[in-house]
Amino acid sequence: MDKPIGETVSAPPRTAVAGVSGFAGGELARLLLNHPRLQGETPVFFGRAGEAEVGASTYLHDLHPQLATAGNMPSNPVLPFSWDRIADTGIEVLFLATPHEQSREWAPEAIERGIKVIDLSGAWRLQETRNRDVYRLKDTDPTAAAALQSEAVYGCPELHRDAIRKARLVANPGCYATSIILGLAPLLQAGLVDLEYGIICDAKSGVSGAGKAATAKTHFMYAADNLSAYAVFGHRHTGELLEQLHLEINQIQFTPHLLPIPRGILSTIYLRFKQTMAPAGVSALIGKFYQDSPMVRLHSTPHLPQIQHIVRTNFCDLGFELGPDGKRLVMVSCLDNLLKGAAGQAVQNMNLMCGWNEQEGLL
Amino acid sequence: MDKPIGETVSAPPRTAVAGVSGFAGGELARLLLNHPRLQGETPVFFGRAGEAEVGASTYLHDLHPQLATAGNMPSNPVLPFSWDRIADTGIEVLFLATPHEQSREWAPEAIERGIKVIDLSGAWRLQETRNRDVYRLKDTDPTAAAALQSEAVYGCPELHRDAIRKARLVANPGCYATSIILGLAPLLQAGLVDLEYGIICDAKSGVSGAGKAATAKTHFMYAADNLSAYAVFGHRHTGELLEQLHLEINQIQFTPHLLPIPRGILSTIYLRFKQTMAPAGVSALIGKFYQDSPMVRLHSTPHLPQIQHIVRTNFCDLGFELGPDGKRLVMVSCLDNLLKGAAGQAVQNMNLMCGWNEQEGLL
Amino acid sequence: MDKPIGETVSAPPRTAVAGVSGFAGGELARLLLNHPRLQGETPVFFGRAGEAEVGASTYLHDLHPQLATAGNMPSNPVLPFSWDRIADTGIEVLFLATPHEQSREWAPEAIERGIKVIDLSGAWRLQETRNRDVYRLKDTDPTAAAALQSEAVYGCPELHRDAIRKARLVANPGCYATSIILGLAPLLQAGLVDLEYGIICDAKSGVSGAGKAATAKTHFMYAADNLSAYAVFGHRHTGELLEQLHLEINQIQFTPHLLPIPRGILSTIYLRFKQTMAPAGVSALIGKFYQDSPMVRLHSTPHLPQIQHIVRTNFCDLGFELGPDGKRLVMVSCLDNLLKGAAGQAVQNMNLMCGWNEQEGLL
Amino acid sequence: MDKPIGETVSAPPRTAVAGVSGFAGGELARLLLNHPRLQGETPVFFGRAGEAEVGASTYLHDLHPQLATAGNMPSNPVLPFSWDRIADTGIEVLFLATPHEQSREWAPEAIERGIKVIDLSGAWRLQETRNRDVYRLKDTDPTAAAALQSEAVYGCPELHRDAIRKARLVANPGCYATSIILGLAPLLQAGLVDLEYGIICDAKSGVSGAGKAATAKTHFMYAADNLSAYAVFGHRHTGELLEQLHLEINQIQFTPHLLPIPRGILSTIYLRFKQTMAPAGVSALIGKFYQDSPMVRLHSTPHLPQIQHIVRTNFCDLGFELGPDGKRLVMVSCLDNLLKGAAGQAVQNMNLMCGWNEQEGLL
Repeated sequence: MDKPIGETVSAPPRTAVAGVSGFAGGELARLLLNHPRLQGETPVFFGRAGEAEVGASTYLHDLHPQLATAGNMPSNPVLPFSWDRIADTGIEVLFLATPHEQSREWAPEAIERGIKVIDLSGAWRLQETRNRDVYRLKDTDPTAAAALQSEAVYGCPELHRDAIRKARLVANPGCYATSIILGLAPLLQAGLVDLEYGIICDAKSGVSGAGKAATAKTHFMYAADNLSAYAVFGHRHTGELLEQLHLEINQIQFTPHLLPIPRGILSTIYLRFKQTMAPAGVSALIGKFYQDSPMVRLHSTPHLPQIQHIVRTNFCDLGFELGPDGKRLVMVSCLDNLLKGAAGQAVQNMNLMCGWNEQEGLL
Repeated sequence: MDKPIGETVSAPPRTAVAGVSGFAGGELARLLLNHPRLQGETPVFFGRAGEAEVGASTYLHDLHPQLATAGNMPSNPVLPFSWDRIADTGIEVLFLATPHEQSREWAPEAIERGIKVIDLSGAWRLQETRNRDVYRLKDTDPTAAAALQSEAVYGCPELHRDAIRKARLVANPGCYATSIILGLAPLLQAGLVDLEYGIICDAKSGVSGAGKAATAKTHFMYAADNLSAYAVFGHRHTGELLEQLHLEINQIQFTPHLLPIPRGILSTIYLRFKQTMAPAGVSALIGKFYQDSPMVRLHSTPHLPQIQHIVRTNFCDLGFELGPDGKRLVMVSCLDNLLKGAAGQAVQNMNLMCGWNEQEGLL
Repeated sequence: MDKPIGETVSAPPRTAVAGVSGFAGGELARLLLNHPRLQGETPVFFGRAGEAEVGASTYLHDLHPQLATAGNMPSNPVLPFSWDRIADTGIEVLFLATPHEQSREWAPEAIERGIKVIDLSGAWRLQETRNRDVYRLKDTDPTAAAALQSEAVYGCPELHRDAIRKARLVANPGCYATSIILGLAPLLQAGLVDLEYGIICDAKSGVSGAGKAATAKTHFMYAADNLSAYAVFGHRHTGELLEQLHLEINQIQFTPHLLPIPRGILSTIYLRFKQTMAPAGVSALIGKFYQDSPMVRLHSTPHLPQIQHIVRTNFCDLGFELGPDGKRLVMVSCLDNLLKGAAGQAVQNMNLMCGWNEQEGLL
Repeated sequence: MDKPIGETVSAPPRTAVAGVSGFAGGELARLLLNHPRLQGETPVFFGRAGEAEVGASTYLHDLHPQLATAGNMPSNPVLPFSWDRIADTGIEVLFLATPHEQSREWAPEAIERGIKVIDLSGAWRLQETRNRDVYRLKDTDPTAAAALQSEAVYGCPELHRDAIRKARLVANPGCYATSIILGLAPLLQAGLVDLEYGIICDAKSGVSGAGKAATAKTHFMYAADNLSAYAVFGHRHTGELLEQLHLEINQIQFTPHLLPIPRGILSTIYLRFKQTMAPAGVSALIGKFYQDSPMVRLHSTPHLPQIQHIVRTNFCDLGFELGPDGKRLVMVSCLDNLLKGAAGQAVQNMNLMCGWNEQEGLL
């Protein structure tokens, strides 16, 4: 039985977004408002806890002016987060576009109330031990949190489609992690990669990945006409790579860079095969792996993906070049950090949880 | 009777785009492929006459990689333009995203064959006399061309909605012209503007407005981190302003600038009212003018539109500030030059010509 | 006697910059460190009062990494501001790159101590009455402040070269104001402009003009790929235009816009001549006005200045087009807001105050 | 004897630039015009052979408007290239900023005439055998060309300072190659790098590196808001890496990317040490290697270089992070592709060839 949720949610289901004020929240609002399955049932939009900019009469277009409707009618109110409101409106699917700490606190409460949760933060992505190391979250009920953690499904449809369909809590993957995992999974699962040499992931992301807070690093004068590496040997998404790709820490190295563009990630991934390969063989293997995954596009050699091709889409584009030795591979993986790397993937997960085609509302 | 076409085209109608290789052509392809009324009837895509990059086995994603489908399936062929192909496929609506000269030649032939035409070039926008001055087009049959010219409807739905519904040939407006006309029409029609002082339109456009040809001016090193004025006192869109706004050449002045961004136009328009006005009065007048025009959004003072708010939408956003004297007005008008300034407006016109809601496929 | 300072300062003179942490401060440091007349006498660099990032062992390259010397030797300390330190090092010329309030407080004290001051803030640019309206500064000794205000020289060398040479306090002009004043002064002084019609100044500036503070408006995601008008009818630099160009408030209108580039201003200025002019006559008049002003470059028609031409130079570039009626003029004026609009002009003023060629260290 | 040229060139020496119309040529013109040792002896500027834009009355500011002098005086003519002119003006040092083919033809002729040559193309960088493979140049006298090739000095002052001082022909290094060589040379020369694992160089460059020709890839709409990898496993600069770093083809892998910025290169270099190292040891080793090389700046851990820090300077900035295992190293190397990667390094080489301080005119 593939669609347990398809039977339990109403049609259209009642959805809500908590943390709609951030960049991912804004994209999520846009996708849900235009989603063909949600017509007639406008999502409920909440801010984050204690957020100053969400007050008594805040509307979606105050936070995201591009989402204004004709005549700027104040049609989509944004409310301070409230469980009462969630209960009153009978929310069935709750998206959390909130900081780790809030997601860690709110997700159990929502599950308790019988609401399906798709969390866009890092709070539920990692196995319990690593999670405590990486995010240092403080749970009021650690035992219950650990239990929920073990139940949470990592929301990468290309790897865990069936589990997502049945999940109560989906941990939506990190943006960098999605781009790297989708580039590597087919090759690693086939056992082709020589892990002695290690895998190098040189990843570059647009500034929206750094969030909406005005900081020294998100200042236009810092980010524009610039490129900088950061968090070398220490980015939080590394944990997702290790767990989802079944690797040890010394087998993969991931260096993020800040690109002077609004959105998009390009990861250049370097590895060696154990045996000599031909390009057609690599293509066939990847193509087969993703044959039922419509949101992954494999470029035919020698075409490589570029950020422009995937910005404002939910696609992850892959392409590669094989070295003249038939062993060294350069894989390029691109996606939009706010869509396939956040809000788009969250909607893809909702589609699966509701028993719909996973592309609905994403083309 | 409002919808003559609604009765004469099939459902879904058969559409074609000639000149799909350019920026506007690519946006048009994207909009038509996703248009809810065209599902099940894929548009036919043509290149321009004599275009080298469109060959025997060219696909849409070769020209616009972002439009690739899952697995990069070669699903949308692009063909060399051919009347035989148009006849064979029974095209009912033809979009011309071609240079002036080709549009001038092809539109009469298409009309002759009973096909509705929406032309995105400047070939049919101006009255005959001015047209000969501005575009210097050579017609093989000048009398027939002049007759067709007099029948062509300027495709600004906010001004000519009813005529567009009945038109055989719609001349889709220029991008700069659309932004300025929509900003000025309500005030000029109300007779409020003191034309003694003249109207100044300082307009700024992203680089896509300069087209896909690689030239010294579209080189990244010329356009990036730069701003430049051009065609001062001499831009071709001036003619559209004069005709649509019923102005004399010395009553309006329009200076375009090249912005270091991919897309978007912001026009800052300066004028004086004949009499003292209050902001609420100006808002009310504009609001009334566009009350049935869902693609125009009026910002409430003191909010002004920005390019970011309208990029990748079909909206034209308006906002204004009135001087302390109650007479001097600064109007800001923004739109996406490839959408409301080109492909989006073309689809809006198609919607009207087919008897549909003008917003279909544009939200 | 033209060079009172040339005789009273030592060679090389002892200089200091207060507020070196901002963008203009950084440019000032760069110019002074490379200034041929200051070799052997490194300037003293101070932060602003109460500035957290300037501590006990702060060096210039901590604030402006591009100014690091070979091997990143910690050669240029930045100190918390201190009058004792100024006295101990015998500072003769003090640059204030500080907020209005600090400049208003520190300039009188410095003058009192016999130090020449070049203030880059707005604190001393306007005549007393207007100043109180615009900047609302609170003086502990209003009478003394008003007296010093009346003595301050507006630091536009092209208009006030002789007075600057003799000044004790130079108020360095605003960036927008410089671009507009230099574009208009020759035409207004010649009495050619028809002020009935008013002058429209549509000005566009890069983001560095908004300062180093991280705010919602300096966030990369706000500024990039965008354009926005702001402070319509209300920008502080308007006062400088009125005073320096001897205009009334209803005779000139100035609208600033935020460009998605790091630096550079382009002002497009619209006016009408009282009489019919020929382009050569306009060129001759401007050329004569600036014949002894090496930092102004006049483009020959039909070439217009662009931001790229002046970025990282101290030039103000001018160019114009005259309408077919011989009366309507579009003047384009470009400069680098951090150089000719701030630090470069400040050094140009120092050069004059020290009796040197005004271009020293600026080419 | 260190300065053979210092004795043979006049003071100031007579210099010329062939190919001044390109980006590197423009930067070279700027540097030479402001060079303190060349005051009073303006360089002679030539176009390339057969270049349409260089005609009878072309001036430097026609090609590079930012280099206009006050009043736009036509002070720096640009001439069609001519050996007669070179003879007439007694040129002693000739910079070739010309395509490979022209440099290959002109350099021998200049050397024959007793002129020192600094060639910015790839024509003379590689040993003869590899050169024939990579650049496929056709020499009219292959034996003479091979002889000259063996005499040419690779113009990396940090590696070949003494040889450059005595050279008749300096082959100025490639921009990518300079950034990678300077990052790796100290570690490789110390024998610390485990070459079994191979070295990965993920390099990113601004668009000026692609040259001034208007092509599909230099179009603003291609380059802006984008990132793309290219020439994977096949970039011409690879040969320089192999020769200068004494590596085999399977020991180093170099992938260039096109950044959406005008200028600057950042190379992220991944390697493993043979033995466990401490950060201080790595720093000390690099610091010692460059102790007499003022144009290399080493950042102290954990600071990493960024493109902004080096743009418009002749510095190459280095910084690194060492993995927790003490073996895996991420080295970041940044430079301005038009300066340290081209024109600036060429002037640095001229300084050495003339017996001057290598930093002259470069700070």
